[in-house]
Amino acid sequence: MKSHTEYLTFNTEKRREYINITDEVETALEKSGIKEGIVMVGAMHITASVYINDAESGLIQDIDEWLDSLAPCGKDYRHHRTGEDNGDAHLKNLLLHHQVIIPVTDGKLDFGPWQQVYYAEFDGRRRKRVIIKIIGE
Amino acid sequence: MKSHTEYLTFNTEKRREYINITDEVETALEKSGIKEGIVMVGAMHITASVYINDAESGLIQDIDEWLDSLAPCGKDYRHHRTGEDNGDAHLKNLLLHHQVIIPVTDGKLDFGPWQQVYYAEFDGRRRKRVIIKIIGE
Amino acid sequence: MKSHTEYLTFNTEKRREYINITDEVETALEKSGIKEGIVMVGAMHITASVYINDAESGLIQDIDEWLDSLAPCGKDYRHHRTGEDNGDAHLKNLLLHHQVIIPVTDGKLDFGPWQQVYYAEFDGRRRKRVIIKIIGE
Repeated sequence: MKSHTEYLTFNTEKRREYINITDEVETALEKSGIKEGIVMVGAMHITASVYINDAESGLIQDIDEWLDSLAPCGKDYRHHRTGEDNGDAHLKNLLLHHQVIIPVTDGKLDFGPWQQVYYAEFDGRRRKRVIIKIIGE
Repeated sequence: MKSHTEYLTFNTEKRREYINITDEVETALEKSGIKEGIVMVGAMHITASVYINDAESGLIQDIDEWLDSLAPCGKDYRHHRTGEDNGDAHLKNLLLHHQVIIPVTDGKLDFGPWQQVYYAEFDGRRRKRVIIKIIGE
Repeated sequence: MKSHTEYLTFNTEKRREYINITDEVETALEKSGIKEGIVMVGAMHITASVYINDAESGLIQDIDEWLDSLAPCGKDYRHHRTGEDNGDAHLKNLLLHHQVIIPVTDGKLDFGPWQQVYYAEFDGRRRKRVIIKIIGE
């Protein structure tokens, strides 16, 4: 079994941002030389997510509004008694999840026609990391 | 390390449908000959999900109504300005997730007593695919 | 490829409980001797979850209230016609998900600074199990 590990770093300008990282994942896969296996892509933080969906700007705004309707910012969360103000970002992370697993076949991400990998930042304007872990042969 | 890849194809009659695919996943595992490892089962589309829960018809209706209460169809999503009408199906995909990972022990899906694998279609009546990727030994 | 499998058992006093299992996962990883690979940690039940987030007691209460606002207990679910009363626990399981995948690098869980693994029980006061499956080399 071979394995390959990479870390991406983000420091977004806005508090919430959605960044297409499909190219970075593909580049890591090429570097790994792995032809059959899986890629795990995961946020290393509890206020950010990695998800797979469409690269359509209207939909990304829909997703952002929908997440904020189900896990609203500005609420008086108990977590804020610690001095934090990001309770909503923790809940958004749980809703979208922090990780995806992508199958690798013939050295490629084995994706359907519209699948793209996104990093979703919910508490940005500081240094955050994503891990890409590839295992296979 | 061994690996095995299969694709299932669906073309549902209804727009939303929930299909038990546990037997198909077990058959793929038998064909693979893999005794220890993991199975990844994932929708290759961004308007469908794969999840693990109970094979109880009342519960499946509960799940369908619950998904539609949290990510309602018929809303005026920004995504619809592209000509699409399936904004809710994208959000339902994000809520349920598109994939599961199942552990394999002694050549069997290492499941608890009630775990069953389901394909959840949110924008059907057309050809959609699921990937089954098994890695192990 | 090496693999290692362990099962944790829970029998909570309360119906809903959130238990930090990071130490148990780290101990399983040490026992496995695996240095590079992945760990899958998953509830073997459809009324419990495994998730990764912060070990902060206020936040855990926020998560519990939030889950119950989106998937309320006490509702008249169709699933209850079978004699069960845990429809909400099934929906909470779907919302939080039953499993996580953790990357392993240099023999350690490759986590960011605040990531902790939690078992979330939604229908406790009986024997439930979690599987830890580690594959790698």
